[in-house]
Amino acid sequence: MEGTKTLVDTAVDQLIHMILEQKLQPGDKLPNEYELAKDLGIGRSTLREAIRRLVARNVLQVRQGSGTYVSEKHGVPEDPLGLTFLGKKNDPKLAVDLLNIRLMIEPEICADLAIHATASQLDQMRYYCNEVATKIQAGEDYSQADAHMHGYFAECSGNRVLKNLLPIITSSVHQSIFSTNDEHRQQSNLQHFRILESIVRRDAQSARYHMITHLNTSRESILPLLKQGKKSK
Amino acid sequence: MEGTKTLVDTAVDQLIHMILEQKLQPGDKLPNEYELAKDLGIGRSTLREAIRRLVARNVLQVRQGSGTYVSEKHGVPEDPLGLTFLGKKNDPKLAVDLLNIRLMIEPEICADLAIHATASQLDQMRYYCNEVATKIQAGEDYSQADAHMHGYFAECSGNRVLKNLLPIITSSVHQSIFSTNDEHRQQSNLQHFRILESIVRRDAQSARYHMITHLNTSRESILPLLKQGKKSK
Repeated sequence: MEGTKTLVDTAVDQLIHMILEQKLQPGDKLPNEYELAKDLGIGRSTLREAIRRLVARNVLQVRQGSGTYVSEKHGVPEDPLGLTFLGKKNDPKLAVDLLNIRLMIEPEICADLAIHATASQLDQMRYYCNEVATKIQAGEDYSQADAHMHGYFAECSGNRVLKNLLPIITSSVHQSIFSTNDEHRQQSNLQHFRILESIVRRDAQSARYHMITHLNTSRESILPLLKQGKKSK
Repeated sequence: MEGTKTLVDTAVDQLIHMILEQKLQPGDKLPNEYELAKDLGIGRSTLREAIRRLVARNVLQVRQGSGTYVSEKHGVPEDPLGLTFLGKKNDPKLAVDLLNIRLMIEPEICADLAIHATASQLDQMRYYCNEVATKIQAGEDYSQADAHMHGYFAECSGNRVLKNLLPIITSSVHQSIFSTNDEHRQQSNLQHFRILESIVRRDAQSARYHMITHLNTSRESILPLLKQGKKSK
């Protein structure tokens, strides 16, 4: 299976080429199997295998009884960074590794947003911040709303790779690992609004430093777990 | 295919669980199909499909006529960030997006290495730097050696997520996009050694700044292409 290209490898390349050339968008439907095999000049079993491969990569999506579509997931496969094999979902070492990467990336995004964010982006950021706040005040799980907010920041950066990358990193930390006491939740909430207000008043340094403070608060809440882990070994 | 878990989804989870529980390492062989289907209590066609899915994710590898093995690629699938759909391989906008991310990450890695790198890691870094230098002096393509060097820096950081992530980002910029004139090559070479020497003398700030200079040199060599692209549209 290594080295030379198989028929399926070539068919995979052909399908990707077709999606790019025809500028197919997420949700667009591909021709039926018969047409597609004929167009690409390949056998139907080869085509089927190539489609399976691209479904596994989240490039395509098969809807039973309906057909094959371009996936809404923009070709970002499941567990793209292979985190499954780096540690359990609530492994504190993995959580710290992820937060260390977020600390490299997200403060810079915030500084950039303070300079470049448009008025409508600022409105949308405020909307997401308020959503998180509502969940926190209601004592509900706010992890998904929080991921939306951080993901939206990455989206506004205009860096298309970051837009795909950041959600992978933010969603990989299992919320249960954070101290979920009320003080920590209220603090997070306050920090979100400090970041937002810094961006709104176009203060790049302040936006950067408030994001550092915010992520470092989470990081420090995990560090004691890391030490416990080491002791128990 | 969405919502409820299929038999194949469950089999995928079972196989991952098995790899983690038995602490199977890259290169380790799985039991044969008959044994495995019996152990997991599933049908052989379900098992086969689950294996295909995990091959697409680079978790497993099938060697024809030999068997199924744990992949050496640590479960990092092909094109994990969906870059195929963000731009052509030599798209200058994509290259700048990638370099902007590298500028957030790699200077911090270097600063950290200046503090934490072990003597044997320093030796290995020098080995990689020399390899790149040899290629450059011989006028050969040094992109792979360069990727090895940058990847090794990430490996030494001890951050297991970075170790998987950085190679994806560094190898995604098609070398052809960089000005390949001799001056640029010699400059890169000099910068590599300045980074290395800063790390060796435990000067974190200097290591950080030399990596910024190095990546920004590449970034600036691409910016003119970006402007050309905009004009021609």
